[in-house]
Amino acid sequence: MPVILRELADFCGARIEGGDASALIHSAADIMTAQSGQVTQLTNSRYAGHIKDSTASACFVAEGFVVENVPPGMALLVCADPEISFIKAVELLHPARIYRRQISPQAVLEDNVVLGSELYIGPYAVIGENALIGDGSEVLAGVYIGKNAKIGKNCRIHPYAVIYDDVEIGDNVIIHSGAVIGAEGFGYKFRNGAHVKVPQVGNVIIEDNVEIGANTCIDRGALGSTVIGMGSKIDNLVQIGHNNKVGKHVIMCGQTGVSGSCTIEDYAILAGSAGVADHVTIGRGAVVMARSGIAGDVKAGTQVFGSPAKDKKVAYKEQVAISKLPELLKKVKVLEERLSLLEKDV
Amino acid sequence: MPVILRELADFCGARIEGGDASALIHSAADIMTAQSGQVTQLTNSRYAGHIKDSTASACFVAEGFVVENVPPGMALLVCADPEISFIKAVELLHPARIYRRQISPQAVLEDNVVLGSELYIGPYAVIGENALIGDGSEVLAGVYIGKNAKIGKNCRIHPYAVIYDDVEIGDNVIIHSGAVIGAEGFGYKFRNGAHVKVPQVGNVIIEDNVEIGANTCIDRGALGSTVIGMGSKIDNLVQIGHNNKVGKHVIMCGQTGVSGSCTIEDYAILAGSAGVADHVTIGRGAVVMARSGIAGDVKAGTQVFGSPAKDKKVAYKEQVAISKLPELLKKVKVLEERLSLLEKDV
Amino acid sequence: MPVILRELADFCGARIEGGDASALIHSAADIMTAQSGQVTQLTNSRYAGHIKDSTASACFVAEGFVVENVPPGMALLVCADPEISFIKAVELLHPARIYRRQISPQAVLEDNVVLGSELYIGPYAVIGENALIGDGSEVLAGVYIGKNAKIGKNCRIHPYAVIYDDVEIGDNVIIHSGAVIGAEGFGYKFRNGAHVKVPQVGNVIIEDNVEIGANTCIDRGALGSTVIGMGSKIDNLVQIGHNNKVGKHVIMCGQTGVSGSCTIEDYAILAGSAGVADHVTIGRGAVVMARSGIAGDVKAGTQVFGSPAKDKKVAYKEQVAISKLPELLKKVKVLEERLSLLEKDV
Repeated sequence: MPVILRELADFCGARIEGGDASALIHSAADIMTAQSGQVTQLTNSRYAGHIKDSTASACFVAEGFVVENVPPGMALLVCADPEISFIKAVELLHPARIYRRQISPQAVLEDNVVLGSELYIGPYAVIGENALIGDGSEVLAGVYIGKNAKIGKNCRIHPYAVIYDDVEIGDNVIIHSGAVIGAEGFGYKFRNGAHVKVPQVGNVIIEDNVEIGANTCIDRGALGSTVIGMGSKIDNLVQIGHNNKVGKHVIMCGQTGVSGSCTIEDYAILAGSAGVADHVTIGRGAVVMARSGIAGDVKAGTQVFGSPAKDKKVAYKEQVAISKLPELLKKVKVLEERLSLLEKDV
Repeated sequence: MPVILRELADFCGARIEGGDASALIHSAADIMTAQSGQVTQLTNSRYAGHIKDSTASACFVAEGFVVENVPPGMALLVCADPEISFIKAVELLHPARIYRRQISPQAVLEDNVVLGSELYIGPYAVIGENALIGDGSEVLAGVYIGKNAKIGKNCRIHPYAVIYDDVEIGDNVIIHSGAVIGAEGFGYKFRNGAHVKVPQVGNVIIEDNVEIGANTCIDRGALGSTVIGMGSKIDNLVQIGHNNKVGKHVIMCGQTGVSGSCTIEDYAILAGSAGVADHVTIGRGAVVMARSGIAGDVKAGTQVFGSPAKDKKVAYKEQVAISKLPELLKKVKVLEERLSLLEKDV
Repeated sequence: MPVILRELADFCGARIEGGDASALIHSAADIMTAQSGQVTQLTNSRYAGHIKDSTASACFVAEGFVVENVPPGMALLVCADPEISFIKAVELLHPARIYRRQISPQAVLEDNVVLGSELYIGPYAVIGENALIGDGSEVLAGVYIGKNAKIGKNCRIHPYAVIYDDVEIGDNVIIHSGAVIGAEGFGYKFRNGAHVKVPQVGNVIIEDNVEIGANTCIDRGALGSTVIGMGSKIDNLVQIGHNNKVGKHVIMCGQTGVSGSCTIEDYAILAGSAGVADHVTIGRGAVVMARSGIAGDVKAGTQVFGSPAKDKKVAYKEQVAISKLPELLKKVKVLEERLSLLEKDV
């Protein structure tokens, strides 16, 4: 959706400096590739060198951010928070797809489904008995929603996501394709040479404003609920076992795994491929660095690294020490020889 | 399904001590949250402190397990194996959903499909040519079953699981949503600057009583079969490459990966995110600890940790030693100085 | 499809030595299990011992490869490249399934879909507005293809793969079940105690001859494209974040993860469960060994191991050194004691 630069600047709360305020902007791009007709952003001085040769028509920068060598054709869009202003620009120029409000004739609605208004239900979606879907939600093609499940308002559930029976999902939740919410947790008791299945009769509760990535799995509680708190963001291929309590505004990057019955407190961050053993608490705002393995509690506000994970500074110091270890082995051998010599002499 | 406590105790093989045998029990819960009308269990003295303030109506405990401060309103359900008795109670109070025995009119059955009796086939399921589905199995919405595939009796296959052509599945198998059984293994030969695909024409054989988690992938053999032995339990997001032979009653936790042509012997346990290189044997009952990486054979009955994995005790000793390494570097430096001084003196 | 051995040899460019050229070959098998009526290969002397007792009717071997104890019933199929000849044999004996050229009546084609000739579109496939599918492609049951997506010629897309809007796929591409191509990347800005979603309005471009494994996720670019280069092969459960540029003929094994905005140059190999932080370049032909974690650039042609990853030789040397570390601690303690003694003496 092309927009006149002047209108774009107004919409995004930015002041135009230089360039052509009447230029037509058709899309957004990053600083390395933006061309005429495109808007970009510069928020990191590391990329400032790209400005000089850029043919972009406009560039968001922060108040007081000094930019040199701005080409004459480029308008600076000066604003308080260029990252957020740029997000607004992208949303305006590349509006999200809106699905026609309709219930596809190829969707299956079982008995007693309660549907809000202004919904999109795609072809081959299957909505189970007694399920409830809130106003404005978009349930795309082939989504499966189990019996008694509740979906809030203005959610978007992408094709072939699976919501098992009894799962409760809040408002403004985005679930990507292939995510499986509410499958049975992994629980067995070993008796007479075989694994006896522990029934998994709890559910999953997902609060408002959560986003869940493609092919991520969140298991239902054995008893009680697995909970994902408000505003938490979960990437692709993440495993969240039964009875975990994930707090609010938590970040879980791709391929992280949390065993079961853990507490991940608000604002914690689990970087890519991190793993957490069961019955562990990750404190508020703690950061588990990429590929770290957590076997015990992590204190609020700390950063941990490694497997088994330690305080980041300790872990880094050990890493440095390990790099000196082959040399150390030689040194000690030499010391031993020198000492032996000395002992003979004395 | 609420049950009178006396009947529940009988059903689960427990003796009532104290409390009200005529109380109506409506559900099960864990010891931390159970309230009036609920039954719980206490099998670990670590949780014994929760008994005192619990309002639960009943609690399973083992014969001879001493519990103090039992509130007067709580009945103890004394039995030989409280974990198993509790499982029975949960199954009685929270019965598994039963799908109406029917073939959905929106299912597609291709030519020569052989269907057992008492089946449920959900909407949009697709059953390929010559496929066979045994008595009492439940094939939920959107499950895809390939040509010539065989599904045993009393299986439950959750929505959008995919069973490729020629896969053979035994009785009482549970497969969760998004699991992909029988996709082509990852095999190429490098020639003239490109990767030439090795045909993957084998299949997957899954024996009785196996459970397979959501979004887990089990590749077909290149030639011959990939096999999952009787009673093995596989968690979510697990990768099992072509031609692996997984034994009986094996446990594979979330996000584990096994490359190809490995043998995982009976009763082995692979904890979360463990990984196994190809052509490796994991011996009977061996335990691969979480996040460990296995590049060589693991002996039966041993426990290994780390990446590359070592005997658990060795690995732990090394971990302790690493934590002392930064200090050791300093010590050796001091030793060198002292020695130099001494050498000058002598 | 059984074939006379003489014809098989001709088809595969091999010369028959010994055995029965008129034997009927019905299938292929590996050297350990091949029996009468089957053809096998021997390309690694490690397996040569299996020849003696094999009842296989024929065995591919390289010109000049010396095989001892060949049973009289076995024909050697001597050729320049037995691995490639064997692949041809497997393809002849076990021909890939061909789907009847038809558009299933249960497929949904939205407005302005452009279909090539000689297609198979399976039941419950959903093809979005303006999508384009090239000649000879097979879109299996339940595949979802988004709005404006382009699929090339002679592709095979397995059941329930999901192609989001605007994704572009070349010719001869194979995509396995559950793969999700083009979901939104994981990008947020933290403001006022919450994570603000960065719009993900780019796409994914997959070039010719790529194969993508089951349940693998490839996210669309935030702006611009995520690219998978020609001939690259990606295994199951792999995570490829937004704006990565994967070169040509790259190998990415199971459960690898690449964060975002990385460059993986041509012919690089990422072994199982390797992980790559964002904004990293993996040089041409570099090998990232299994379970390694990459936080910085990897030079072309090098091999790296560990987490954090180092040059393979350095990493191995450190591993050896770590195994000597517990002993080293004791040695240094002894040295200290000896030195103290000596200091007293002097």
